[in-house]
Amino acid sequence: MNHTLLERRFNTLGPYTPLFYDQPLEFVSASGVWLTDVNGDRYLDAYNNVPHVGHAHPHVVEAIRSQASALNIHTRYLNDRVVEYAENLLATFDRRLDRVMFTNSGSESNDLAFRIANQHTGHTGVLVSDFSYHGHTRALAEVTTGLRCDEGIGNHVRTIRIPDLDGADLGRSESEVLTESLGEVDSAIASLQEHGFGVSAVLFDSLFSTEGLNRVPGGYVKGLADRVRAAGGLVIGDEVQSGFGRTASAFWGHQNHRIVPDLVTLGKPMGNGHPLGGVVLPAALLDEFGPRNMYFNTFGGNPVSAAAGQAVLDVMEAEDLMARAAATSRVVREQLELLRTKHDHIGPIKGTGLFFGFEVFSGPVSESASRPDAERTKRIVERMRRDRVLISRIGRDDSVLKMRPPLALTIGEAEMFLDRLFAAIQAVA
Amino acid sequence: MNHTLLERRFNTLGPYTPLFYDQPLEFVSASGVWLTDVNGDRYLDAYNNVPHVGHAHPHVVEAIRSQASALNIHTRYLNDRVVEYAENLLATFDRRLDRVMFTNSGSESNDLAFRIANQHTGHTGVLVSDFSYHGHTRALAEVTTGLRCDEGIGNHVRTIRIPDLDGADLGRSESEVLTESLGEVDSAIASLQEHGFGVSAVLFDSLFSTEGLNRVPGGYVKGLADRVRAAGGLVIGDEVQSGFGRTASAFWGHQNHRIVPDLVTLGKPMGNGHPLGGVVLPAALLDEFGPRNMYFNTFGGNPVSAAAGQAVLDVMEAEDLMARAAATSRVVREQLELLRTKHDHIGPIKGTGLFFGFEVFSGPVSESASRPDAERTKRIVERMRRDRVLISRIGRDDSVLKMRPPLALTIGEAEMFLDRLFAAIQAVA
Repeated sequence: MNHTLLERRFNTLGPYTPLFYDQPLEFVSASGVWLTDVNGDRYLDAYNNVPHVGHAHPHVVEAIRSQASALNIHTRYLNDRVVEYAENLLATFDRRLDRVMFTNSGSESNDLAFRIANQHTGHTGVLVSDFSYHGHTRALAEVTTGLRCDEGIGNHVRTIRIPDLDGADLGRSESEVLTESLGEVDSAIASLQEHGFGVSAVLFDSLFSTEGLNRVPGGYVKGLADRVRAAGGLVIGDEVQSGFGRTASAFWGHQNHRIVPDLVTLGKPMGNGHPLGGVVLPAALLDEFGPRNMYFNTFGGNPVSAAAGQAVLDVMEAEDLMARAAATSRVVREQLELLRTKHDHIGPIKGTGLFFGFEVFSGPVSESASRPDAERTKRIVERMRRDRVLISRIGRDDSVLKMRPPLALTIGEAEMFLDRLFAAIQAVA
Repeated sequence: MNHTLLERRFNTLGPYTPLFYDQPLEFVSASGVWLTDVNGDRYLDAYNNVPHVGHAHPHVVEAIRSQASALNIHTRYLNDRVVEYAENLLATFDRRLDRVMFTNSGSESNDLAFRIANQHTGHTGVLVSDFSYHGHTRALAEVTTGLRCDEGIGNHVRTIRIPDLDGADLGRSESEVLTESLGEVDSAIASLQEHGFGVSAVLFDSLFSTEGLNRVPGGYVKGLADRVRAAGGLVIGDEVQSGFGRTASAFWGHQNHRIVPDLVTLGKPMGNGHPLGGVVLPAALLDEFGPRNMYFNTFGGNPVSAAAGQAVLDVMEAEDLMARAAATSRVVREQLELLRTKHDHIGPIKGTGLFFGFEVFSGPVSESASRPDAERTKRIVERMRRDRVLISRIGRDDSVLKMRPPLALTIGEAEMFLDRLFAAIQAVA
């Protein structure tokens, strides 16, 4: 660790911006899934989803350079770059979702989605998972349940527990869990209505990643969406984590649940690191919001951001990244299932595509005295760092390993990753 | 105009995103203060402040390319690029303002400043100008007075009229206007306290640009800040318009008013078009907010954004842009004063540095029947477009010409601009 740099960081950005690891890493360059630190050591990145098509991808860099050297301007003038990108992006959605509003982050996107939903419904009530995170604006702080926010949960917010057949609901009947969970949704909606808030929206991440990659009963998300709509609310699908082929089984996470949200919010991987987000919605919703609000986003939809976004779509297609991710994720899952047979303190393998993990317990999962073990999970993460592989952890107890490499991960790299993970699990067993 | 592109835009982004001019312009490239449209025609840009050091500046483009091709990652790892930029940015502020939180836009910055102020004071009450705009998040929609927002003004918001010695208060005694205006501030504060909101913050743009570049009485801003602080509130200086040497007389707009805000918010010109913003604040405020909130901004402080921000500072210094802007703005102001002697329907020359304008009236300013003339102002803007110069208009009546070229404008280019402006004023007289 570079003590001087850390001190200089504390003296400018402050000590609160989170840093990974007991001994933070300082990286200077990267390519594909490989990061090089200040000492020249190379790390395999099995954590970062923002550099979606691979770190410093030359096609994305060249698209940004080329457009930035020609023109970077806002949308008050016409520019074909942003329109072309919008068309190509919208082509990946159900045809009902035919308009896009560009922003600069997932936070701006979710904040805007709330404004649209509030105005459409005339209600303010919101349903969110009881352990989730959707961004840092004040409106989003009021619905933040998965990390520390001083605002606290707003009066207009009801939280619901997301079921997990591979976690808290392990071993229970799927239909019983479904009935119980949707009953909780009904109660939350009734409470919002009784208290005069009405139902404006439900906001959720299709992967339930902050929650710990919950496996929900079949029909749960559809049941949730149906109930919110029946109460007059809108369904906001937050695709910041699950979008752009991350799950390998669908381009958008909500498609895995066989629903079409009313509003889809985008962020992180969209520009491979270039600040880019968006809200995708039906024309009917935009036609309502548009005349009532002079919404203008200075950087949103500038041609350089559009070029970055288009380059991500181009690379995904040219390098067949979704199909590769599907193949790689099958190998990963097979191997993780194998690992599980060797270590009885590992919970069920969770996640979809290239966002996967498992819970780490204090003892055999089958023993009722065993508990989610945050400390052991942390030791695995730190051990992987020592072995130069980046992963992290999530979940209510910080006990679910979070593995989410760039989609560019090859099968060979996945095998290197698995070897080191096996060694780490063995070492920390 | 390219009809097909316009239709394609409407079918993807919708028809509500504002477009300039009756016949929108489509630009394809730019350099310095010159934009080239799809027909190859060149326009002198006397409007855009985002490309602060000049459109597509090669040093900024190369800084972005170079860093993007090496590494783009979030702040959970150490990186010297972001720390170095933070140090250089903070060096431009009063030493009390010694911490920065990076964001991706002015909207994210102002939203965050509100969170910090609310938490610090334990109050929610906000004072804003009665014709202003500070961003598009929901928290900011509730304080938006200068454009259409469906939310309406929040109950916790009090609006104050910003005096204008060259506008509504023309001809009145400066001390009388000062007393009256600060009395209005006192009343607004008293109302917030009576209604139990207390005073959290005042948020203002030092140039009062949306309002129409108001010339406030000497001591007004200081009096406003003093009163808000005496009531326990914080002073938020929005430098999105007035910062980075725009006024030529000071690097930060608030310095022209001889105050140091508690929170300074940054956006637009900060990355010359790259999405970049920030909140600058004293360590004491960050030390309060930091432990209470796990604030993490995914793109905020990434090394590519930092490289773009650093490049803007570098170019400003290398090309001596503030001193040049000061010299250029003197020529502009002299010539505009001369123009005013020839056209009696032009109000006092307004603004500071390279953000200037004047109100256009229906008849001689001296005649009491004369009114701000939005239609005539629009005709001037459209005539300038025909003559290939970009300007716009602002103010409560849309009757103040808004001229705000990139800081890179040379004196020669300023003279070309002035020639065409003189011709347009003559033609639309």
